[in-house]
Amino acid sequence: MSHFSFFNPISNELDVVEQKLFENINTSLALLDEASAHLIKAGGKRIRPGFALLAARMYMTSLERAIPLAVTLELIHMASLVHDDVIDNSETRRGADTVKKRWGNRMSIYAGDYILARSLAVVNEYNRPDVVDVLADASMRICEGEIKQMLSCYDVEQGLKDYLRRIQCKTALLISVSCQLGAMISAAPPQEIEALKKYGYYVGMTFQITDDILDLVADEKTLGKPTGNDIRQGIITLPVIYALRFLPDRYKFKTMLSQPDICRSETANIINMVVESGGIEYAYEVSRKYAYLAQQQLLLLPDKPEKQILSDIADFILIRNF
Amino acid sequence: MSHFSFFNPISNELDVVEQKLFENINTSLALLDEASAHLIKAGGKRIRPGFALLAARMYMTSLERAIPLAVTLELIHMASLVHDDVIDNSETRRGADTVKKRWGNRMSIYAGDYILARSLAVVNEYNRPDVVDVLADASMRICEGEIKQMLSCYDVEQGLKDYLRRIQCKTALLISVSCQLGAMISAAPPQEIEALKKYGYYVGMTFQITDDILDLVADEKTLGKPTGNDIRQGIITLPVIYALRFLPDRYKFKTMLSQPDICRSETANIINMVVESGGIEYAYEVSRKYAYLAQQQLLLLPDKPEKQILSDIADFILIRNF
Repeated sequence: MSHFSFFNPISNELDVVEQKLFENINTSLALLDEASAHLIKAGGKRIRPGFALLAARMYMTSLERAIPLAVTLELIHMASLVHDDVIDNSETRRGADTVKKRWGNRMSIYAGDYILARSLAVVNEYNRPDVVDVLADASMRICEGEIKQMLSCYDVEQGLKDYLRRIQCKTALLISVSCQLGAMISAAPPQEIEALKKYGYYVGMTFQITDDILDLVADEKTLGKPTGNDIRQGIITLPVIYALRFLPDRYKFKTMLSQPDICRSETANIINMVVESGGIEYAYEVSRKYAYLAQQQLLLLPDKPEKQILSDIADFILIRNF
Repeated sequence: MSHFSFFNPISNELDVVEQKLFENINTSLALLDEASAHLIKAGGKRIRPGFALLAARMYMTSLERAIPLAVTLELIHMASLVHDDVIDNSETRRGADTVKKRWGNRMSIYAGDYILARSLAVVNEYNRPDVVDVLADASMRICEGEIKQMLSCYDVEQGLKDYLRRIQCKTALLISVSCQLGAMISAAPPQEIEALKKYGYYVGMTFQITDDILDLVADEKTLGKPTGNDIRQGIITLPVIYALRFLPDRYKFKTMLSQPDICRSETANIINMVVESGGIEYAYEVSRKYAYLAQQQLLLLPDKPEKQILSDIADFILIRNF
């Protein structure tokens, strides 16, 4: 398990989270365990647990009490990944060795549902209906975001607002909730809970925008997958929205992007057009603004070592892999 | 909305539940609303809300407080129906006009996830972590049941215990939880909560066994769908398990049942063989035993009009459509 080096000060706790993740998917059904264990092993940076633990540590010395929350957040994130694997008959299968590919759509559904129910059981240990409320609300909005993304594929008429609302639900919300709940279970003052919630939101927006930039221009080795995945799937991201508006040849570009076949066969050309339009610089500028807003929220927090780490993370997300 | 005539004394409350179901799926996304509204309109007998309201009314005069619970239970049931609609590429589409058929697998996933999150938000209004715990636990076991059913298709080596465990998760559990939680939110005495929980479990078992019998021998008009659906899908139910063990020609029968093609092309023959084996009478006998156990639990409850209704329901489920 390799996580962000920023998480080194909480690496012991993240190891406990890792172990609890495995414990929590231990059922009487070998196949379900295997499907979930496969997912845990596939890893990820455990960003949500990391944020929750850092936020909690601003207000508690021992993080034992924050572990179930960290586990819950990662389980919710994992469940959404499993459900994302479910594909339509018409859809091209993704390259990765997904739960879906190995066990079929139905298994993905039930494994995701199981993990969600388990996450609820874990977080319910706090006896904190206010915490459950935040998660229930976030879960609904995450679903809305997924549906919005699905419906907006190949839709060349969408604008900046559509994109921002979508990535807010898709990414920023759960990171925001991670910071917020880390503070909530540690009895932080209300205005600092709010600042951490907003910090998480702005960092989450920065994270998704830079992710979307990387999908277009990253080195494939660093990215670990081919660039242009979003283009191929018809997911219209910020640099593309800019190109749709400002590219001299935007009418041709629009026609290309609205056709799934062209998006798949002309991916490299489309990326070149986005780069030429200046869309990458524009998206980078927007992400820089969100990172700045995240830093502003940190000014409202007490001076603790974790505050510096959160600040460093916001800086890093912005410049990673450029 | 036509419900059980047994529910007439609580029909006003069930109307409120119906209205709240619509209110609870009112989102900012027209397509999600449409998908969910479609599902609510498709109806169902609202059995779970009915049980919860009846159990609650044994201990409260006004049922207002029980409405959110009734809504939650039906939302959870609906979410499981939506997720059941998700099909594999290899699977034959079912006849009904499912959410899946109209909006694709992805929409089914997200609509189901959304409805689940919404159900959590609704039940969380009670500020009762013990209630949330019961639901989280039930949700996990329902998933396990679904996976067990999926894995046991065409498995001719399964026995009585496998079947009973499966229908316990698939059906009995949520009915049991409906009765239990109806009593829990009404501050019923612990031993009566337990009796209602067990009553619901036994009635749920009776319900699923008779459902499985009807799938084989019902009049198609009464059933509203062709008989033999379980056979065609490879779902091995109690009468079939009996035939697998006691039919003189059981080796041939076994070979037939383990082949999906034969299950589809020889459905009528397979049903005849089950009938000849005496499997229907056997399954009926087992369901009668569960109905008896349900009645025994009612003896532990105070003499209220609802107790008589619950008793009548157990009787009725046993004899419906025979």
